[in-house]
Amino acid sequence: MSDKPFAIPLRVYIEDTDAGGIVFYANYLKYFERARTELVRSKGFDLRSGLSDGVSYVVHSLEVKYLRPALLDDMLSVSARVTKMARTYFVVEQHVSNNSGECLVAASVKVACVSYPDLKPKAIAEKLASALI
Amino acid sequence: MSDKPFAIPLRVYIEDTDAGGIVFYANYLKYFERARTELVRSKGFDLRSGLSDGVSYVVHSLEVKYLRPALLDDMLSVSARVTKMARTYFVVEQHVSNNSGECLVAASVKVACVSYPDLKPKAIAEKLASALI
Amino acid sequence: MSDKPFAIPLRVYIEDTDAGGIVFYANYLKYFERARTELVRSKGFDLRSGLSDGVSYVVHSLEVKYLRPALLDDMLSVSARVTKMARTYFVVEQHVSNNSGECLVAASVKVACVSYPDLKPKAIAEKLASALI
Amino acid sequence: MSDKPFAIPLRVYIEDTDAGGIVFYANYLKYFERARTELVRSKGFDLRSGLSDGVSYVVHSLEVKYLRPALLDDMLSVSARVTKMARTYFVVEQHVSNNSGECLVAASVKVACVSYPDLKPKAIAEKLASALI
Repeated sequence: MSDKPFAIPLRVYIEDTDAGGIVFYANYLKYFERARTELVRSKGFDLRSGLSDGVSYVVHSLEVKYLRPALLDDMLSVSARVTKMARTYFVVEQHVSNNSGECLVAASVKVACVSYPDLKPKAIAEKLASALI
Repeated sequence: MSDKPFAIPLRVYIEDTDAGGIVFYANYLKYFERARTELVRSKGFDLRSGLSDGVSYVVHSLEVKYLRPALLDDMLSVSARVTKMARTYFVVEQHVSNNSGECLVAASVKVACVSYPDLKPKAIAEKLASALI
Repeated sequence: MSDKPFAIPLRVYIEDTDAGGIVFYANYLKYFERARTELVRSKGFDLRSGLSDGVSYVVHSLEVKYLRPALLDDMLSVSARVTKMARTYFVVEQHVSNNSGECLVAASVKVACVSYPDLKPKAIAEKLASALI
Repeated sequence: MSDKPFAIPLRVYIEDTDAGGIVFYANYLKYFERARTELVRSKGFDLRSGLSDGVSYVVHSLEVKYLRPALLDDMLSVSARVTKMARTYFVVEQHVSNNSGECLVAASVKVACVSYPDLKPKAIAEKLASALI
């Protein structure tokens, strides 16, 4: 079993914050997407390149828990770990942590594989599936 | 009982879309926030003005289901209905619909009332609570 | 000569602001793009629909002056007036004003007509050119 | 004279792109701001920390030329070089380049030092001024 999940470092810039002085709640979804993209890239794949082969990956649903706010200039770590691989979708557990290792935001994201451009469920390529789990 | 939930109209601009040709998944959270803000404003309140009184409202957690994509230039309707009012939080059910009335994205958002700036749970003012439910 | 330029009303939401408590400087470019889109739409055209005909419109260059900050909840007016129409580009003068009519941000945006997807300069369709000037 | 300007590497994510398949024109201003922030940080300063001392830095005006589009997954380099230091403002020349070294976007950004929160022009601290030029 893998121990440490895949994670990327990330700096909070002024673009990410709002007038409350903290990271705007929608912007964590950008952070989570960056980590998923780099996880897949780290395995030698590219989620978008499939478009030309008639395949796309879309977020089907998600749950997010906001535990503590991230602030301007914070150095964060954003993780992504595939916890379920089904025929046409997979589930990614993700965390944003600060540099004391405290979890600030936790999410569970279900990503569906679909045909492109008609967006019908499609089986995930075996190579990708076995690389991610 | 109220029948039709509060809703705002909204146009999809190029800023909202991504290279997949559809609205980027994080941007629906901006749409949901706008609808919640206008719901509260429509009742004569202002969620942010409380900062000077030591009160703030923050998203505690959320669930989103993405059913169909919204596209550039689409005219959408974004609704917000408070379905639960507790002492220190409330839950808002929200939908993004297209102009055929089809639901594209559905969300449930739990908003917590906290003291500001120390962000501890705090009772929601009675006036606001009774206006929203 | 037209007197009042085309303008759209626009509310500042929390998504537009930053930790400085004001609208983030990049976000005015979103406001300007919305106003240009609605100007073109008001004339019965659609800048994006051309993609299928091998035409696209891209920002070639711009200048922005930030005079005063816009704040959360402000109601703004964003104008767009075509001041120059050339064979392959046009120039749009744009302002963000508050509801006292004060100019907060002023911009001059040069939009080029290009072939799509190879992005070479292309003559603007006569109908669009004569509608915009 | 300094030879190579300060620069940061940067990956284009799906959040940065639009339905045209390229980076949305406003998002380059986010890239430029990140590079300016890191330039100042590399000198041991922090543009935002001054808020508590009654100092802030705001963009006064800018010019941008868009030469070629950046695409999803591109690895870019974003530079920042202070080319003028005046009593109450400085000018930063900035470029976004691809990994062949081609310039995609060029900008000149005038940043003003102001008192906070009343936003009146203020002399730049000598230490910062001499570090940046």
